[in-house]
Amino acid sequence: MELFYSRDIASGGRMLDSQESAHCIRVLRHREGDQISIVDGAGCLYRCRILKADPAGLQFEVLEVVEGYGSHPYHLHMAVAPPKNPERFEWFAAKATEIGVDEITPLFGDYSERRVFKGDRIERLIVSSAKQSHKAALPLLHPAIGVRDFLSSVRGGGRFICYCGDTADLGAAKIPLTEALCDSQRDITVMIGPEGDFSHDEIALAVSLGWQIVSLGESRLRIETAALVATSAVYLKFV
Amino acid sequence: MELFYSRDIASGGRMLDSQESAHCIRVLRHREGDQISIVDGAGCLYRCRILKADPAGLQFEVLEVVEGYGSHPYHLHMAVAPPKNPERFEWFAAKATEIGVDEITPLFGDYSERRVFKGDRIERLIVSSAKQSHKAALPLLHPAIGVRDFLSSVRGGGRFICYCGDTADLGAAKIPLTEALCDSQRDITVMIGPEGDFSHDEIALAVSLGWQIVSLGESRLRIETAALVATSAVYLKFV
Repeated sequence: MELFYSRDIASGGRMLDSQESAHCIRVLRHREGDQISIVDGAGCLYRCRILKADPAGLQFEVLEVVEGYGSHPYHLHMAVAPPKNPERFEWFAAKATEIGVDEITPLFGDYSERRVFKGDRIERLIVSSAKQSHKAALPLLHPAIGVRDFLSSVRGGGRFICYCGDTADLGAAKIPLTEALCDSQRDITVMIGPEGDFSHDEIALAVSLGWQIVSLGESRLRIETAALVATSAVYLKFV
Repeated sequence: MELFYSRDIASGGRMLDSQESAHCIRVLRHREGDQISIVDGAGCLYRCRILKADPAGLQFEVLEVVEGYGSHPYHLHMAVAPPKNPERFEWFAAKATEIGVDEITPLFGDYSERRVFKGDRIERLIVSSAKQSHKAALPLLHPAIGVRDFLSSVRGGGRFICYCGDTADLGAAKIPLTEALCDSQRDITVMIGPEGDFSHDEIALAVSLGWQIVSLGESRLRIETAALVATSAVYLKFV
């Protein structure tokens, strides 16, 4: 079953945009009277019937609303330092959407080589990835933010910061992310640093703010791989 | 630290091939007397000294051998049906190498849309991924094989086949892969089917041969994503 996406269906919009309309009518050959499924990006799937098969602006009526379609039993916020190559962050965003992520925040740290972040392409990839993996909710892509500001901005839930370095001098234990996750805490934030990792000062601040330092094992993972392994760890914990 | 790769260092070869030599001398500007690290693809890292800084064929002497460099505490064989787009399988092979995989076998099943598999490009990606993630052992890429032949060929260890369908009529339980994994069984084989999943007959054969049917949760994952989530599950279990 093919899913279509409408940004304004929840607020009463009953027409698909030109891109979705053309795909539905020209590519998939749907006609007036056909039933199609539309997601609102906020968690609802709408079963609809086509009233006007216009490839420039398909009009439909809503027959049924399914809430929490393709949802997952946790809330995951992944804060990740964008690699130099934008495609690697885009790839992470698309794959994490398939697996199950709710918020994505690009991070800039003391050791970040990249200080500019363009999210426009990612929005499109997230929509197609959510449609393809049958998820009615799109992850929220936040603006890029500095590590210190992010550390201070997240208050509740399980707050985990992945760190490869030694933490002995900080008097803080580092445990595997899989051990840090627990059934009773399903509101989770995970931070993944740049290639140069987080700085000692950033980790010290995280500890002082009550963040749990975690490890993702011994393998030397690239940023986007570490981010996807962490996303998988949270997903697998609650499946 | 940059790693170099030599296919024949273990058998006494003391010269890098032209590509590795040029990269070492022309790009990284190494000179005679410099120390470099070379992996043999079989698990050993060799600390070496450059004797002749020839960009066409760098000659070196071995100072020290480190066994099991970048190894992981399990043996994982991932058997995965190649998606239509070859890049998605290549991407899986490269990422799985980063995380930790020992053998990769392309599968053709009853519902496979793709029956041809070219591995040449993957070999190169695996080498660069292993060097980049500091692993001295390269995963073994097997020739493509049919699902039934593969099911019969794997004898020992934990044998898990991921299946989205219902298994009630087979009298076989389906459990999450994370529950199926246990500390005492670290020799693991995981099968991931094509977009159309495994056929009922293939699953019935798997059950009759003692394979455990497992699930990767509710998310609708593409082949390469499911394969990487499964690889992450095994990796995270033993870190």
